[in-house]
Amino acid sequence: MHASLQHKFDLDTPCLVLNMDVLETNLQKMQVAASQAGKNLRPHAKTHKCSAMAHLQMDAGAIGICAAKVSEAEVLVKAGLDRILITGPLVTPLKIKRLIELLDFAPSLMTVVDHRDSIALLAAALHEKRMSIDVLLDVDVGLNRTGVKPSEALELADFIVSQPNLHLMGIQAYAGQVQHIASYEARKAASLKCLQEAGNVFRELQAVVKTCTIFSASGTGTYDIDLTFPWITELQVGSYVCMDAEYLAIGSASNATQFVSFGPALRLLTTVVSSNHKGFVTVDAGLKSFYRDGSKPYILGQDYDGMEYDWFGDEYGKVICHNNVKIPPIGTVLEFVTSHCDPTINQFDRFFLTKGEDVVGIWPIDLRGCSQ
Amino acid sequence: MHASLQHKFDLDTPCLVLNMDVLETNLQKMQVAASQAGKNLRPHAKTHKCSAMAHLQMDAGAIGICAAKVSEAEVLVKAGLDRILITGPLVTPLKIKRLIELLDFAPSLMTVVDHRDSIALLAAALHEKRMSIDVLLDVDVGLNRTGVKPSEALELADFIVSQPNLHLMGIQAYAGQVQHIASYEARKAASLKCLQEAGNVFRELQAVVKTCTIFSASGTGTYDIDLTFPWITELQVGSYVCMDAEYLAIGSASNATQFVSFGPALRLLTTVVSSNHKGFVTVDAGLKSFYRDGSKPYILGQDYDGMEYDWFGDEYGKVICHNNVKIPPIGTVLEFVTSHCDPTINQFDRFFLTKGEDVVGIWPIDLRGCSQ
Repeated sequence: MHASLQHKFDLDTPCLVLNMDVLETNLQKMQVAASQAGKNLRPHAKTHKCSAMAHLQMDAGAIGICAAKVSEAEVLVKAGLDRILITGPLVTPLKIKRLIELLDFAPSLMTVVDHRDSIALLAAALHEKRMSIDVLLDVDVGLNRTGVKPSEALELADFIVSQPNLHLMGIQAYAGQVQHIASYEARKAASLKCLQEAGNVFRELQAVVKTCTIFSASGTGTYDIDLTFPWITELQVGSYVCMDAEYLAIGSASNATQFVSFGPALRLLTTVVSSNHKGFVTVDAGLKSFYRDGSKPYILGQDYDGMEYDWFGDEYGKVICHNNVKIPPIGTVLEFVTSHCDPTINQFDRFFLTKGEDVVGIWPIDLRGCSQ
Repeated sequence: MHASLQHKFDLDTPCLVLNMDVLETNLQKMQVAASQAGKNLRPHAKTHKCSAMAHLQMDAGAIGICAAKVSEAEVLVKAGLDRILITGPLVTPLKIKRLIELLDFAPSLMTVVDHRDSIALLAAALHEKRMSIDVLLDVDVGLNRTGVKPSEALELADFIVSQPNLHLMGIQAYAGQVQHIASYEARKAASLKCLQEAGNVFRELQAVVKTCTIFSASGTGTYDIDLTFPWITELQVGSYVCMDAEYLAIGSASNATQFVSFGPALRLLTTVVSSNHKGFVTVDAGLKSFYRDGSKPYILGQDYDGMEYDWFGDEYGKVICHNNVKIPPIGTVLEFVTSHCDPTINQFDRFFLTKGEDVVGIWPIDLRGCSQ
């Protein structure tokens, strides 16, 4: 008997809730898919910003965790995680200093590199401390954000190999521009084209650098496509564990307008604070709760079919009631699948964990605000 | 001699900087304008999320501080602030419980009310504790978000007055829909129309309720317009102290395309992390730093005229280099006026304070994440 369990709708709002039933299915499904294809998972903590979730992913079989920033890696290490890959190049003396200080506590830490100047800076700083680090070469396959062009990758790899403190372990090739293409077939063609480019670099590198065994790439939107690609060794998937309205609206292999592989584990609860109008109500979640990016949040609950969220300032949302859906009175708690999950999560301090309708725990979002 | 002062460009990035020279001018200018018009200031902490800034505003002459949420008020009270007005109606037992617990520590706390059901809930909860509270009637002058319609205001005021635990001190009438109208003349007409509607309610109330002495309204975009209105007693201005790209682009009385009253005190520093392309570079501030709302951030520094920011994912920005501006190398720190300041600030944990080019202090953004 757990007579004292709290119902999720008795939580104060706005707040983030993780439906653990859905979340555990998502976790298992991704891990099984990767394992069956003979690939590894290195899930991205930039999405969930939560070391407890990273531990769960490791327990489920992941071989490591990705961090977008050195400040995220610092929190992960403090929380007992290891085998962390920092997926963005660190290019300033300040950032490299933080990396090396962290390396002392976490010898398995890896980072990506993509430019001769920052590689030289990193190698010199390591030399001073008589330390070394494993690195991946960040290859730009069309996102054009970071990374070296494939045509210049081998020359830069030579330079990395010439640095005794850097161990080149492979490549990273993230095709962020491909992940949200609505059509599955178009997304498939685009992703395989990117992987082919990266794969060519990888195989040429492998021929000359024996330590090159890691080809880290992919994302939630292309996970099943990329698992069919022979040379890739690990997936950097992030959103699959939480999911959001934007990802759920892209097509999948079996459904042209819905991403059916993973369910919406992440929800946001918000309360009606004003019901003084015909056709809409005001709720207590605005820009500072649902991040204004990607698709609009969508409502859960059969009674509320026909309700549509829109932002209504920093602290408020407008929930429009179409199709004669009953206008909810003030105090009503509504449950939404969120807009873009990564920056939405980054606005909160904790997840409430639920099983069925009950709150069964709390996880701090301990990487929140780690933007450096 | 302060030989050890840190130059702002030596800060790790992304980070938020407050130019204290500009900030103090903004503070003084608003306070002097209000005082000369015989009006009070109750600046809004929802913008800056910082109790140290609220103290500075009080020291400059403000009569109190606004908070959008009870959780913000909790932090302000803990930091020693009083005369706090919560500007959103609290409608659930959970929120009213938090309000009453806070009232024990801060007897000068006020809240707004706008609905018979939540007023009854509040009055009953206060009765149980043998406590009372000062309230303002929230009047909806066209934003349609919270508040009672002007035509129903007097009836609801009667109901408030019938509750022995509630002291009706006046009205709130925030015209958020007017603040960013680009044309000064159109904004002026719209704001005065809203104030006139609220003023009619206020004068009718005053005739029957002797304690009604507060008419709280206005925002940064209409402050100088609203100061000319006879019945308003206090301004709830927020953004004026920090400012952002969106507000700086609206017209003012003396300039059709620029808001000249206040300067950009808030800046965001970001570093070039990739410079591998013609025509643009990648910086380390993305959606989780500059909030994607309102106008785009704009760059400061004469050498960088012709650079344009755009979002480039959660962790990155793309800085496009127009007009043959020199492409900055990796490691270069760039200084931007931010997009919408409120939700941008809410993504960071601290402000670095600068005088000239030097870092002279740090303020915690201690209300960050207070969305409840």
